[in-house]
Amino acid sequence: MVTKGEQTRDFILKKAYSLFVKKGFKQVTMKDVCEITGMSRGGLYSHFSSTKEIFETILKNMTQKDQLDFQGEIKKGFSAVTIMDNALNLLEKEMCDSDASLSEAMYEYSETVGSDMMTELNEISVKNWSVLIRYGIKTGEFNEVDVSEIVSILLYSYQGIRMWSRIIPVSNKTIRAVVMNIKRQLYKNKGKGDE
Amino acid sequence: MVTKGEQTRDFILKKAYSLFVKKGFKQVTMKDVCEITGMSRGGLYSHFSSTKEIFETILKNMTQKDQLDFQGEIKKGFSAVTIMDNALNLLEKEMCDSDASLSEAMYEYSETVGSDMMTELNEISVKNWSVLIRYGIKTGEFNEVDVSEIVSILLYSYQGIRMWSRIIPVSNKTIRAVVMNIKRQLYKNKGKGDE
Repeated sequence: MVTKGEQTRDFILKKAYSLFVKKGFKQVTMKDVCEITGMSRGGLYSHFSSTKEIFETILKNMTQKDQLDFQGEIKKGFSAVTIMDNALNLLEKEMCDSDASLSEAMYEYSETVGSDMMTELNEISVKNWSVLIRYGIKTGEFNEVDVSEIVSILLYSYQGIRMWSRIIPVSNKTIRAVVMNIKRQLYKNKGKGDE
Repeated sequence: MVTKGEQTRDFILKKAYSLFVKKGFKQVTMKDVCEITGMSRGGLYSHFSSTKEIFETILKNMTQKDQLDFQGEIKKGFSAVTIMDNALNLLEKEMCDSDASLSEAMYEYSETVGSDMMTELNEISVKNWSVLIRYGIKTGEFNEVDVSEIVSILLYSYQGIRMWSRIIPVSNKTIRAVVMNIKRQLYKNKGKGDE
């Protein structure tokens, strides 16, 4: 049951996302968003009051994707390996899509607005991944790894590739290697046909 | 035997480095470099013809530090663990020093000048680390790891942290966790008092 208002919001977010990817954060104006969405000033402002609000909504949505709702997936009874496979597939797809990286915009955003929101989202993300890894250790699917090590390696390799793929071409093989390394460290039965 | 000219070059590079960290690549001019070094235009141009040349020299020097000259260290007969420990110590120190990150400048450089030089330096770096890891496997000090996995994890976590520490505070504990994870994967006798 998606309302018309929600549809419009999603449409604005999608169009604005492409603007932030292309121009960073600082150079995007509400006028740009009007132009790319074909909306009037009044129409746009009834949904968002600033590019800051739009950008922050995009960031929040990125960390709240269904595939990253680990608590929810665990409650539904999925295995740790299934949840992790889905999540890593999502990250791998994102890493391969260098044209859609918001790294530059995030950098400019934090320079302009401050780091509070990014810090908060990062903490949520660390907690979230930690829950999943501990769940896998508990079910016996994952090795008894050092949780904070794996979470750090995972999140920062991801961010490193997202940023560097805007600087140099990063091959899909390299991205695959990063994902495989995480799986190799976690999964007790590594390589069940996915290597 | 460092000549006067070399001393001056090093002085220029050091001062320009701080400018690139602060202002990125695009906004630094040769006039800025004159000002920060206290040199005349003629004096500066007798060493470097452009900010591009200065920046590229800095990048080259970064990948050619003594601690990262693995071929040289291997020839001198150092053990793989010793060489790796030194190199990881250097990376750890750099990651903790978020004020000295050139990530933003590198991004702007590649946007302005192109990605050829970065790609080349990255390839040298990958080759270099691979040599060291294969050496450690051969001497029996390292586990039989997938070399490209470890190199990718190592280089991209490093870049991810260098970039993200400009966006949010990254704790020394997190940086330590990344380094420990690399050691844990590589070293056969992990944790000899360094955990």
